[in-house]
Amino acid sequence: MTGSSKSSKCTVRFLPDNVEAIVENGSSLLSAALAAGVHINASCGGMGVCGTCKVKINSGTVESKPTEKLTKDEFDKGFRQACNSSVLTDLEVTIPVESRLDKAVQTRERTKSSGVAATGWKYSPPFAKHYIELPPPTLDDNVSDLFRMMRELKASCELIDLPIDFEVIQKLPEVLRESNWKVTVSTLVSAARLRTPETACPKIINVEPGDTRNTHYALAIDVGTTTVCGQILDLNRGKIVSDSIVFNKQISYGADVITRIAYTQKPGGLIKLQEVVVASINEVIDRLLTNNKILRKDIGHLTVAGNTIMQQILLGLDPKYIRLAPYTPVANFIPLVKAKSLGIKVEDHVYVYIFPSVSSYVGGDIVSGVLAAGVNQRKKLTFFMDIGTNGEIVIGNSDWMVTASCSAGPAFEGGGIKFGMVAMSGAIQDFSINKETLEPSIKTIDDAKPKGICGSGLINTVAELLEACVIGQNGKFNTQLKSPRIREGTDNYEYVLAWANETQIDQDIVITEVDIDNLIRAKAAMYAGCHTLSRSVNITCSDFEQVILAGNFGSSLNIEKAITIGLLPDIPRDRFTFIGNASLSGARLVAFSEDMLDDSRKVAQMMTNIELSENPDFNNNYIAALFLPHTDQNSFPTVINNLNCISG
Amino acid sequence: MTGSSKSSKCTVRFLPDNVEAIVENGSSLLSAALAAGVHINASCGGMGVCGTCKVKINSGTVESKPTEKLTKDEFDKGFRQACNSSVLTDLEVTIPVESRLDKAVQTRERTKSSGVAATGWKYSPPFAKHYIELPPPTLDDNVSDLFRMMRELKASCELIDLPIDFEVIQKLPEVLRESNWKVTVSTLVSAARLRTPETACPKIINVEPGDTRNTHYALAIDVGTTTVCGQILDLNRGKIVSDSIVFNKQISYGADVITRIAYTQKPGGLIKLQEVVVASINEVIDRLLTNNKILRKDIGHLTVAGNTIMQQILLGLDPKYIRLAPYTPVANFIPLVKAKSLGIKVEDHVYVYIFPSVSSYVGGDIVSGVLAAGVNQRKKLTFFMDIGTNGEIVIGNSDWMVTASCSAGPAFEGGGIKFGMVAMSGAIQDFSINKETLEPSIKTIDDAKPKGICGSGLINTVAELLEACVIGQNGKFNTQLKSPRIREGTDNYEYVLAWANETQIDQDIVITEVDIDNLIRAKAAMYAGCHTLSRSVNITCSDFEQVILAGNFGSSLNIEKAITIGLLPDIPRDRFTFIGNASLSGARLVAFSEDMLDDSRKVAQMMTNIELSENPDFNNNYIAALFLPHTDQNSFPTVINNLNCISG
Repeated sequence: MTGSSKSSKCTVRFLPDNVEAIVENGSSLLSAALAAGVHINASCGGMGVCGTCKVKINSGTVESKPTEKLTKDEFDKGFRQACNSSVLTDLEVTIPVESRLDKAVQTRERTKSSGVAATGWKYSPPFAKHYIELPPPTLDDNVSDLFRMMRELKASCELIDLPIDFEVIQKLPEVLRESNWKVTVSTLVSAARLRTPETACPKIINVEPGDTRNTHYALAIDVGTTTVCGQILDLNRGKIVSDSIVFNKQISYGADVITRIAYTQKPGGLIKLQEVVVASINEVIDRLLTNNKILRKDIGHLTVAGNTIMQQILLGLDPKYIRLAPYTPVANFIPLVKAKSLGIKVEDHVYVYIFPSVSSYVGGDIVSGVLAAGVNQRKKLTFFMDIGTNGEIVIGNSDWMVTASCSAGPAFEGGGIKFGMVAMSGAIQDFSINKETLEPSIKTIDDAKPKGICGSGLINTVAELLEACVIGQNGKFNTQLKSPRIREGTDNYEYVLAWANETQIDQDIVITEVDIDNLIRAKAAMYAGCHTLSRSVNITCSDFEQVILAGNFGSSLNIEKAITIGLLPDIPRDRFTFIGNASLSGARLVAFSEDMLDDSRKVAQMMTNIELSENPDFNNNYIAALFLPHTDQNSFPTVINNLNCISG
Repeated sequence: MTGSSKSSKCTVRFLPDNVEAIVENGSSLLSAALAAGVHINASCGGMGVCGTCKVKINSGTVESKPTEKLTKDEFDKGFRQACNSSVLTDLEVTIPVESRLDKAVQTRERTKSSGVAATGWKYSPPFAKHYIELPPPTLDDNVSDLFRMMRELKASCELIDLPIDFEVIQKLPEVLRESNWKVTVSTLVSAARLRTPETACPKIINVEPGDTRNTHYALAIDVGTTTVCGQILDLNRGKIVSDSIVFNKQISYGADVITRIAYTQKPGGLIKLQEVVVASINEVIDRLLTNNKILRKDIGHLTVAGNTIMQQILLGLDPKYIRLAPYTPVANFIPLVKAKSLGIKVEDHVYVYIFPSVSSYVGGDIVSGVLAAGVNQRKKLTFFMDIGTNGEIVIGNSDWMVTASCSAGPAFEGGGIKFGMVAMSGAIQDFSINKETLEPSIKTIDDAKPKGICGSGLINTVAELLEACVIGQNGKFNTQLKSPRIREGTDNYEYVLAWANETQIDQDIVITEVDIDNLIRAKAAMYAGCHTLSRSVNITCSDFEQVILAGNFGSSLNIEKAITIGLLPDIPRDRFTFIGNASLSGARLVAFSEDMLDDSRKVAQMMTNIELSENPDFNNNYIAALFLPHTDQNSFPTVINNLNCISG
């Protein structure tokens, strides 16, 4: 760690990837990693507060101060927080396993339950292909190329006087002649406005030589804060050809939407985050194409659902006012946008349908999910929930819907948890405890050596610790218990989930009182949101005839344990259903059906948004929920019945 | 003229402009001039056949062969045709006055006759501005910025659920906030399809901070083959603020549309010609703005009319198939196009309305002219005529219209005429002859020393020579007459219009039998077109209740003389009216009135195009018209009555 260079440029080599970046002397190590295209976890977006960007300096000098996120031992061993370390010389840096993102993301979807999907929709893709053969022009019939095509579309396809993109006109003469006047015309139904029979007119977006009807594909894409999921859809068969998932490369710029918004406010930040989310979409597309030998030119349409922040950043719409009271999005209904204009690598004529959203924190992903779940199709009173840093909830049925978002904090995604991590290989996902010995049994994703604990693992662990009386209803450890697993750590009391020699990271993996407290606050926010929203329409949680849990987090949730900690209401278990990535399912539906396209707008329009922030009822409900499972024991009868050691 | 350099690059200096171009050894001199941005007349587009690109080599060596377009004397003096001369060394070249284009173009419009303009239209510009004040968002009303604006547009302006350009959404948050929620919203009625009450919906194309209603301008532009004319329109007052005219810089690439099309087929040719016509439009805009202290940002809409070839080149639509049988244009109806996408220097949100056209040779300029003349508004049987290299004719009234184009050749614009030139300073415009002495009296444009003869001068001269029996009805000189003015020249007999010492060009300016023959063929084509089109609807020329002469050429025409040579039909003179640049007038009308916008499409749709090329009736009528005034003497009673020396 001695200085070797005083030049104004420094070369930083990152291990184990063994890639370099050349940066200005004084740059932060985190920015050097971004420049090198190397991922370092930085869930706070480089603000120095999360401590997830820990790296080890092997050689060279950085300037950084000891922080509370690093132990003295770590600091002495050369560990630093990348975000608050300045590069002074050429460096070699190792990114330890816990600061790295796995290359591969896995979908761990449960088999979807039947009975919660939209039904009865007519198969009628908004993106359609029409093959026509035109009579070649003669002196007696030398109308314009465009009119010739329009005339045939009317005669053969009953498509009358359609609008047409100018770019189609530009290539028309050559396409008509090279194909010997036999062409395929692509049309797309616009969804920028609610369509009436008078205005339900598709527009012509492409013309291709010959008959291309047998290659007719669309892409459905869910842009999540953490992952980007895509599916190739065969529009001739109404089938999913393939799906793929990648990390949203924006993760390198912050784990949650608020840090992403903060990043967009830096110079060039919005453009950068737009570029990387587009790069993630392009990566999904590349994978889908490679896996299936479908050609890029055969993709004719894209449908995209994401939360309001992801959608706005993708579109280059400044999300600044989403995080400032009174929290206004730019627009909930977006006209069709050319994929090319966003940088998405498909043919020039391809449009993107962006799901309508409801408010700054209830986005297109929720509208898409509610649509996919068919909530709007049934009289059954439904509670729809997507648990996450920003948890969205919807209550309603075919007649009405109310919605809200709860700022739960990052605990469900491992944020703010000492050994928290996102749900990937090596994350402790399930936990049980021997009530006699207090020894744990843990289950990790992929059965890998443990590396940390993910949200669902955390819920299961806290529920088990509660049921085993290791912690009380206030989340505090029972310090009377004798076990080497229960000990006083740097963050107050903690329970050792795995000993250092059992882990990938050579440290004891523990759950601390601070972690438990963070989880309680997260679940309290979700529950208080549910409670407040129910009260706003004069119902109680027990009135829910159906509870639909959406999202990847929902899919890995143990319902019984989630009720035990008071995250979910204590109602009959058979009312709960998982729907997986409903956002992606909805995006698929609008590619398959004009009816669903119209419904996507209707659903967004029928949702009444209730603002919970600065709502006094919400605050009261939140404080009441800061207990395991809740201060109102009567709301959780089955849980209380199971608890052997009620504490105060 | 000795070689001084053998390097592969040569520097060519052009006088009198004193500008240089560095070109490859072996390049044509014409291309060197284009590279230097120097204009050399080349009405045939550089094919070597017109001889208008004569230049004088002062120093250096070119490789070129003697041609029939240069006298031996000229060749010996160092004159060459620029198009067929290859640059071998560094050169200094003088472009003589007759090969140059005047810098200034002048409009010589007659006072327009009343009674031939469209009337009764409602003033309602398709481009409109709406000022609204929005309530700022609160926690109780935190709808999206877009919805907030839409809500106010509905409440204040009765504009409901309008489509909106995505770019407006992108800038909305900042515009709303910087203006303290007081903005002006611009809307534009789309004219891509015939609108019905259900679809008559403007779209939102811009939002600006504050109240900008007092600066509300549009541009009307006529893109002619020779000139580009523009007007700034004040949409608040329904007035023309200013007009301006420049040469279409495409002239350097050929005088007529056919040579322009030929140029577009060279590599990069279409893009080049698009660039230069856009540069011409930008020059008009610059002049209009400079003259009037109106800001570029205050221009919110453009309407453009031009012939089909000019419109297609402006739009980057390949005109290749316009000149190949069966002569098909790409499209007659063009959706609104962003001005920016064409390279026109106005604000990004501005759209261009392109006039609908009818066929490859009956373009938006004719539709615009017929609209401006109100032909479609009246029962009166009207003959509308735009005389030029490509002469367009329309016959009809409010019930029906037929149209055709006649390929008259370039004689009316001075092409193919030994001393022919376009109508600019120094052109002989009027001519009379003393029947005793056979001495002429000539009148030039600007009363400058003569430089050549323009189309209207040619018509007047031939008519006078016919009436004075200097030529016969077959166009041949009466060689019995004794006058130094009548002599045998290199191109058979000729009449000296001006002696060398009276001219700018130090040569005798003459009119030759070949010139007269070219004019006869041109007028025969126009008349045969009129005749054939009339017969196709079972009328004769004498049925015309009104004849409207459009275009700059029409404006300078002497009707009596035009009838004398048989260009116009011999009907009562009070039925003739001039309408000037009706194409520009029509472009103005559609900027002023949605009704006129709709009518522009209706007019284009009601015109039935009759193809004259390869039409046997037309060929017969053409041959019959190759006489002065016509072989059918009964059709021209007043002319025959005046002729004292009928010849065969």
